[in-house]
Amino acid sequence: MTDPVVLSGLRPTGRVHLGNYFGAVKNWVDLQNSGKYRCFFFVADLHALTTDYADTEALAAYTRDAVLDWLAVGLDPEKATVFLQSRVPQHAELALYFSMITPLGWLERVPTYKDQIEALRSRDLATHGFLGYPVLMTADIAIYRANLVPVGEDQASHLEICREIVRRFNSLYGPVFPEPKALYTPTPKVNGVDARKMSKSYDNTIGVSESPEGVREKVMAMVTDPARVRRQDPGNPDHCNLFPFHVLYSPPDEVAVVDRECRTAARGCVDCKKHLISNMNPALEPIRQKRAALLSRRGDVVRDVLHAGDGRARAVAEETMERVREAVRLSPEP
Amino acid sequence: MTDPVVLSGLRPTGRVHLGNYFGAVKNWVDLQNSGKYRCFFFVADLHALTTDYADTEALAAYTRDAVLDWLAVGLDPEKATVFLQSRVPQHAELALYFSMITPLGWLERVPTYKDQIEALRSRDLATHGFLGYPVLMTADIAIYRANLVPVGEDQASHLEICREIVRRFNSLYGPVFPEPKALYTPTPKVNGVDARKMSKSYDNTIGVSESPEGVREKVMAMVTDPARVRRQDPGNPDHCNLFPFHVLYSPPDEVAVVDRECRTAARGCVDCKKHLISNMNPALEPIRQKRAALLSRRGDVVRDVLHAGDGRARAVAEETMERVREAVRLSPEP
Repeated sequence: MTDPVVLSGLRPTGRVHLGNYFGAVKNWVDLQNSGKYRCFFFVADLHALTTDYADTEALAAYTRDAVLDWLAVGLDPEKATVFLQSRVPQHAELALYFSMITPLGWLERVPTYKDQIEALRSRDLATHGFLGYPVLMTADIAIYRANLVPVGEDQASHLEICREIVRRFNSLYGPVFPEPKALYTPTPKVNGVDARKMSKSYDNTIGVSESPEGVREKVMAMVTDPARVRRQDPGNPDHCNLFPFHVLYSPPDEVAVVDRECRTAARGCVDCKKHLISNMNPALEPIRQKRAALLSRRGDVVRDVLHAGDGRARAVAEETMERVREAVRLSPEP
Repeated sequence: MTDPVVLSGLRPTGRVHLGNYFGAVKNWVDLQNSGKYRCFFFVADLHALTTDYADTEALAAYTRDAVLDWLAVGLDPEKATVFLQSRVPQHAELALYFSMITPLGWLERVPTYKDQIEALRSRDLATHGFLGYPVLMTADIAIYRANLVPVGEDQASHLEICREIVRRFNSLYGPVFPEPKALYTPTPKVNGVDARKMSKSYDNTIGVSESPEGVREKVMAMVTDPARVRRQDPGNPDHCNLFPFHVLYSPPDEVAVVDRECRTAARGCVDCKKHLISNMNPALEPIRQKRAALLSRRGDVVRDVLHAGDGRARAVAEETMERVREAVRLSPEP
């Protein structure tokens, strides 16, 4: 028995922020370090085209920044295969085979499809590729015959269409692919400094490699319990946007103090923020240093990591495609 | 200036019949022999999946039979690149990029789409791949930066969506592709022995490598002018299914005799058929002999021809994909 294969990817959106980190990349590092899985982690640049085909200018720089941060937070190209989706053409090849067996009805029923079409109407999004996004996602997983896809608690339904497509392929052509299963991973919720979902498009992010000054400024500007108007009002950490950061960055005994002193108005929000900063900045320091060290290395570390990862990914992917072509039996000879 | 690139493909449907031959393959041979073009001719096995994904068992044998006949009628792998679509994964890769920029509305407006969906409803055809058939067709053409696509008089509209997709790509990312143009080629109409369109699914075909007995039987069973009921009735070659075959296989002076003697009832249909057979069989004899010679060669001629063609096609296709990837600018490094 070989170790189960884990597959996960993120669109290239530039430097990793704490939302990306706690939502995905930290789990990648933990999975990689567990020693229990063969891990494939990739920059989903082809997926970026589903919504951003008309403006690709920034994507290469976003990929570079993202991969630097992945390495800085501990992703290890010796332990995991880290690669760029568009450099493994077998993703597209397998997606075409899946496209042939995927009814339009399945795609139109995907809950995110109609929502996104509505939300992004101005960008002329109703393309064949956008509709086929779950087909490409299925190929991303199946091309490595992945067994497990890390997902948060509420995301298991995203995998259902992948499982359906894989099942249909296997029933038509024979058992080539395992059915991918959800691997539930902890995804503690951190919101942006304005208390909305942390997202680059809201300009409310804190980066994993944010400078100490950046951390200080952003935390000091952070929204806290909106009901706590005056210093002497008691606060409620459950309604405070700052508190989840304490949970992540302050030691448990200090978190207990924060909770108590907030509820009793023994501390004000300004002091509470300074307290957080004093814990966050040392925690982020190794990431900043690792990033700086990577950048100062001779050569181009991102290029080297991706080239090596692309090559390893292609080898596995091509082996899968050989099985696929044989199963579909198009060619008169192998 | 290099020679213009010509691209054409046929789905694998087995041995070539006279409908395929006069509709496409004869033109391929003429284009190849003109010395004016770089020719790419392929078995469109991925396209076969758009309608036949659920039953691929016969496709490999169909490919083999088709390629043998292509070679038998004069296609020359030294002069043209003859290959199998599924063995050049760049078709699928480019199709994915095109898929991202192709609005669903363009595809739903393709006249053949709704017709076919209706006609083939029983086969669960409304798949993402079937809807995307014009996207893959565009990739087939553009991956060789083809300038010309041979089409019959009434088929120029089939190319319009390809030209639109290519234009959109060029305007988004820069001028990578020439706009493919129709190359009008003569496509004399020959119907099947029952006077319907010649098609394998109607079981009314005559093969280019049909045996002499097969030709005799099929021609003798052919429908002629339905208004000519008795031997002594004058016939009308314009309403006769046999006459177009005379035009193709009998010398012009004999065709004139056929026309006159039919209209004056100087000859009956049985004699007219025997006359045709006496001209058709010698014309098809070299094809039969070439096919037999190919089959008797040591080794596997179809495999060898396709392997060589696949390799040449891949080299050109990969060069195109390098330009595409550079134009779309996904990667942080080349």
